[in-house]
Amino acid sequence: MLKRDVREKLIAIVGEENVEDNNASLLAYSYDSTARYQALPDAMVAPRNKHEVAAVVKVCNEHRIPIVPRGSGTNLCAGTTPSEGGIVLIFKHMRKILEIDEENLTITVQSGVYTKDILEAAQQVGLFYPPDPGSMHISQIGGNISENSGGLRGLKYGVTRDYVLGLEIVLPNGEIIQTGGKLAKDVAGYDLTRLYVGAEGTLGVITEAILKLIPQPETKQTMLALYHDLEAAAESVSAIIANRIIPATLEFLDQATVQVVEDYAKIGLPTEAKAVLLIEQDGAAEVVARDMEKIATLCRDNRAFDVQVAQTNEEAEQLTAARRTALSALSRLKPTTILEDATVPRSKIAKMVKAIGEIAEKYQLTICTFGHAGDGNLHPTCLTDARNEQEIELVEKAFAEIFEKAVELGGTITGEHGVGMMKLPYLHLKAGEHGLEAMRSIKKALDPNAIMNPGKMFDPHTKQSTGVEK
Amino acid sequence: MLKRDVREKLIAIVGEENVEDNNASLLAYSYDSTARYQALPDAMVAPRNKHEVAAVVKVCNEHRIPIVPRGSGTNLCAGTTPSEGGIVLIFKHMRKILEIDEENLTITVQSGVYTKDILEAAQQVGLFYPPDPGSMHISQIGGNISENSGGLRGLKYGVTRDYVLGLEIVLPNGEIIQTGGKLAKDVAGYDLTRLYVGAEGTLGVITEAILKLIPQPETKQTMLALYHDLEAAAESVSAIIANRIIPATLEFLDQATVQVVEDYAKIGLPTEAKAVLLIEQDGAAEVVARDMEKIATLCRDNRAFDVQVAQTNEEAEQLTAARRTALSALSRLKPTTILEDATVPRSKIAKMVKAIGEIAEKYQLTICTFGHAGDGNLHPTCLTDARNEQEIELVEKAFAEIFEKAVELGGTITGEHGVGMMKLPYLHLKAGEHGLEAMRSIKKALDPNAIMNPGKMFDPHTKQSTGVEK
Repeated sequence: MLKRDVREKLIAIVGEENVEDNNASLLAYSYDSTARYQALPDAMVAPRNKHEVAAVVKVCNEHRIPIVPRGSGTNLCAGTTPSEGGIVLIFKHMRKILEIDEENLTITVQSGVYTKDILEAAQQVGLFYPPDPGSMHISQIGGNISENSGGLRGLKYGVTRDYVLGLEIVLPNGEIIQTGGKLAKDVAGYDLTRLYVGAEGTLGVITEAILKLIPQPETKQTMLALYHDLEAAAESVSAIIANRIIPATLEFLDQATVQVVEDYAKIGLPTEAKAVLLIEQDGAAEVVARDMEKIATLCRDNRAFDVQVAQTNEEAEQLTAARRTALSALSRLKPTTILEDATVPRSKIAKMVKAIGEIAEKYQLTICTFGHAGDGNLHPTCLTDARNEQEIELVEKAFAEIFEKAVELGGTITGEHGVGMMKLPYLHLKAGEHGLEAMRSIKKALDPNAIMNPGKMFDPHTKQSTGVEK
Repeated sequence: MLKRDVREKLIAIVGEENVEDNNASLLAYSYDSTARYQALPDAMVAPRNKHEVAAVVKVCNEHRIPIVPRGSGTNLCAGTTPSEGGIVLIFKHMRKILEIDEENLTITVQSGVYTKDILEAAQQVGLFYPPDPGSMHISQIGGNISENSGGLRGLKYGVTRDYVLGLEIVLPNGEIIQTGGKLAKDVAGYDLTRLYVGAEGTLGVITEAILKLIPQPETKQTMLALYHDLEAAAESVSAIIANRIIPATLEFLDQATVQVVEDYAKIGLPTEAKAVLLIEQDGAAEVVARDMEKIATLCRDNRAFDVQVAQTNEEAEQLTAARRTALSALSRLKPTTILEDATVPRSKIAKMVKAIGEIAEKYQLTICTFGHAGDGNLHPTCLTDARNEQEIELVEKAFAEIFEKAVELGGTITGEHGVGMMKLPYLHLKAGEHGLEAMRSIKKALDPNAIMNPGKMFDPHTKQSTGVEK
């Protein structure tokens, strides 16, 4: 519970209606989309503008109160679980698209803007914001930036980081800084912009962003390639890239996932296939047509038993929409769904999927795998029950092995979900002890009182709050 | 001069032949490509591998000896001038291309590899490494990464940062870390990779890099558009982008530059034009043909009095090669050439070029302007004489005004050259005091003894060497 004087200070800044600390509110902000992580905050605070954010941060810094900046809470790494209590900062009053600049191809937004609204605003003027994380219909851009969200178009178009040109940040000391700008080139000092992308809210609060837009691709085509075995699908992926074609989307689904998605979406997916690739190309009409033809041939050459090209836009939309439902579809099957995102170099996908299968079998677990084959970003998803402690112990062992295997193959413990609380115990596998030490020293330098989202990414270095009563 | 015991320790690590401290060597490493900056180091050290780099850094850290990592010294910001003495670290033994991975589209290189060799190695297997800084024929990739070098293809393809997937870094404490990997997606902890890109050697020594390659564009076309006035050229740039075309290259040269380049290259450049755009598009043949036709029409609609399309590859090569000689050509005219790279949002180019002209006139200086119009990265170049103290004072005043104007227009003090010593006094203009403080705190956290390239980017926080005799 916040001390009375702290509570009053916060109310003086944001107004009484924007500080909530009744039980219902605290419960609502005690968890995000990650199974098995929950902790009550001391209050929810909703500042109305950057100056209020700065003032709130100053109060929290003075009283050593943890701040958990939270978008829509769609993250899958327990990145916004208020594990150390404190306040959850939400951005419901900061939802403005401030500007679309068609000459410089940028969009400037407040951090509470929904990702989908950015895509749509760009589309309305013939421009394109490519990052499309699975949760884009409800996720907020501040969260996307803090988690460096990926999505289905990472292979060809990159991730959120590649579209952030500038940020407005409230530092942990409450000062506001601007980084970057509407600039394709800017090397004035350290790249704070990219340091804050993916920093998971541990280094400050992002209040505004300048994002890069690109011309909308002229046209798009979608196909499915069906396989009797996984290796053939992986070899097709390699063959496509080896032929110097970079598709806009190159998704992999295993049979279990296809079956579950079909049960859910009922659009006639090929449940008889052991592995399916969903492939999309966009660009100029001639190029797309030529690429799709080549891709179809390469898939057949690599033992696809069928290649189905979507005949209409609606059909294509249905296919990608179905792929996007994978997580929702899988979560219907068992009480608890644990979605992971171990990532490997593209050439190691077959090895990784095979290893996941072996690990699942070893621990007798149900793990379905789908993901972004084009960029090696897999989503092994375990269907389990958090109440079954015995099984959960096995799940943890299995995932630890999966992470180790990914790193062994030259990969990483997380491709697009972030570290949060969930991968904190594994970060050393990828970063190494000295790398971890370097990261911690940056954290300590910028947030000496450890108020910013403590308990995420690594253990907090200090946490004696003077503003909260236990 | 290095103390005898330190000198012996260094020789024990790298061998006697790889420590040079005779006067000729010290003089050779006392300056880089930046006019008016010079300082003698205490020694040149050339480690043979990363372990030797690490051992050298440990010795230097112990004795607080400044380390200046240096590629070919082609930077234009006095980024490798050993202003605090110490050792200059060179990479002549670390020039190996370690691997081209055609499946993951990566190239792994040691930091001493020449940029041009990377482009050529990629090209040989039908792949493409887009960053092409002006000095790419002799620059080394370690320097490119440390300066986040840009080039002519920034608009469409981005800068060095966009192609660095992973790094091997020797930290200031002498520990070796690996960041990133052959991964399109990786969010395991802070983005150390991008923090070190553009850190100008102030946070550690880069020893190896994994770079991203992309498929080689099928075809390329080049044209010149000639104008009677600058505004018309700037409006053409805006019109091209407004029509959702992103050319591979979109360069601007003013009349003075065109004349000087023509005097030098003698290829029949249109010296009668007040402003010239050099435009290149690459990609699939149909798309390039269509884009070039549209671009030509847009240029004519925006008052180009002539549009000349290169008829052969040789002719096209000649044009871009001529553009690349701009700096060399200009440097023939006066004893001292000071090349700047104030950068503004693309939409502000006309305003910026006009302001540069007014400032030149105000101070009665010769400033030629050329640069990357597509990304707002201009190179106002002052032809002067460093021995004329009175004029140099005016030059400094003029550039200070140019930087202020750039920032006022939403731009930056440096688009691709870096801060180094040269822009150190101006960094606060772009970063702001709190941003600068955040950067300094990162520097202090990672390099507490201030041994890494001290005196660059910001004033060193401490510099009591115990390993050098004054």
